[in-house]
Amino acid sequence: MAAAAPPPPPSPAAIPETTVPETAPPRHPLFARIRLGTIFDVPQLHKLIHQMATYERLTDQFAATEASLASTLFPSPSPPPPFTSFTVFILEVSPDPFPPTPQDPSNFSPILKTFHLDLPIEDSEKEIFRSEIGGDVVVAGFVLFFPNYSTFLAKPGFYIEDLFVREPYRKKGFGRMLFTAVAAQAAKMGYGRVEWVVLDWNVNAIQFYEQMGAKVLPDWRVCRLTGDALEAFAHLNI
Amino acid sequence: MAAAAPPPPPSPAAIPETTVPETAPPRHPLFARIRLGTIFDVPQLHKLIHQMATYERLTDQFAATEASLASTLFPSPSPPPPFTSFTVFILEVSPDPFPPTPQDPSNFSPILKTFHLDLPIEDSEKEIFRSEIGGDVVVAGFVLFFPNYSTFLAKPGFYIEDLFVREPYRKKGFGRMLFTAVAAQAAKMGYGRVEWVVLDWNVNAIQFYEQMGAKVLPDWRVCRLTGDALEAFAHLNI
Repeated sequence: MAAAAPPPPPSPAAIPETTVPETAPPRHPLFARIRLGTIFDVPQLHKLIHQMATYERLTDQFAATEASLASTLFPSPSPPPPFTSFTVFILEVSPDPFPPTPQDPSNFSPILKTFHLDLPIEDSEKEIFRSEIGGDVVVAGFVLFFPNYSTFLAKPGFYIEDLFVREPYRKKGFGRMLFTAVAAQAAKMGYGRVEWVVLDWNVNAIQFYEQMGAKVLPDWRVCRLTGDALEAFAHLNI
Repeated sequence: MAAAAPPPPPSPAAIPETTVPETAPPRHPLFARIRLGTIFDVPQLHKLIHQMATYERLTDQFAATEASLASTLFPSPSPPPPFTSFTVFILEVSPDPFPPTPQDPSNFSPILKTFHLDLPIEDSEKEIFRSEIGGDVVVAGFVLFFPNYSTFLAKPGFYIEDLFVREPYRKKGFGRMLFTAVAAQAAKMGYGRVEWVVLDWNVNAIQFYEQMGAKVLPDWRVCRLTGDALEAFAHLNI
């Protein structure tokens, strides 16, 4: 949760995908896709999480390795079905349209969207974030979420632990696309809530979330038991 | 999360179970047990959650039924193994010692503790909270928790959604017993964190948690997307 949602783009108006008038300046299409993450995404995911820790100035708390991410997010031999446990959506971008994808066995169809940008994106880290699917596809961000539960509603929901978009792709609507993918999945499954946390000084993020229809709960504080204080309970005589 | 932890007892010192000197006033033993909840506990669990909503003055948000609790917490035909999804610990009390219990197939052994009280507890709702296991056993509280995940640690943890002790049993150490049971389970499983939320004005609860070794994070705020605002995403064109 310390790793939670960095400020998403401050609500860029979605650019309608209609015919561009001939007088408009030329635009640069960028094709985006959200798909379920797999164990093959772990190397890129590890780099993304490290960038997020750097962005949040919390690298001192960063202890993840590729091996520990793989074993906890995609445990072998059979990772839990998507949405029943820790779930990762990977955001990929490409200068070319994505080929049609077969329906995922989990019944989650990748989400496609075309962005028309005023300027092409300069991505100096393109090579190290090249997608595991190959080609000219680059990983631009991710969201990690898992089920939570409301006893009052007697319904599951989703908790968004992390939402991250790499720097060159910010403020263009990609954060909104990732957030929307999770909310849409929750709504489709009949879930009661989507929850996450935000830093109270992050006014851009708060404004963005409120525009998406979310409420910031003023009175609740997060409590955390971790490290040695948690370890001490392992052998405690209850 | 709105239903989260009401104020637990403000850290009563555990009464050591040593021989009572003859000069001490007579004490009243009460035997307590924490065990995994099952679908057979749903009627009592439903009443406990309703009492919690009343306590928190949030009955307007209370929409759970026995049927909806049963289907979401203990889905048939095979509920997920304990600790992998939504998990309930039931706190029972009895004037008589609990019989030995066979090891649970989940490898969770019920936790037993004997409380020596200065006065017997007057429980006017004893009949409606009689445990499903029968005898003179009464359900006194519960805790509901589920796995969460820290990307920085690359480790699961537990999130405590609700912790509740019925009124006649408060301020005697039962809340601490429930909380400790969850923390001990997390520590035994090698998990990285236990997290929950608390109302910022609830100084007794905050003091209790801090004495247990927890930290209250001052800067994070909970965000929630629910109701119509969430429904709107079901058919949204991403």
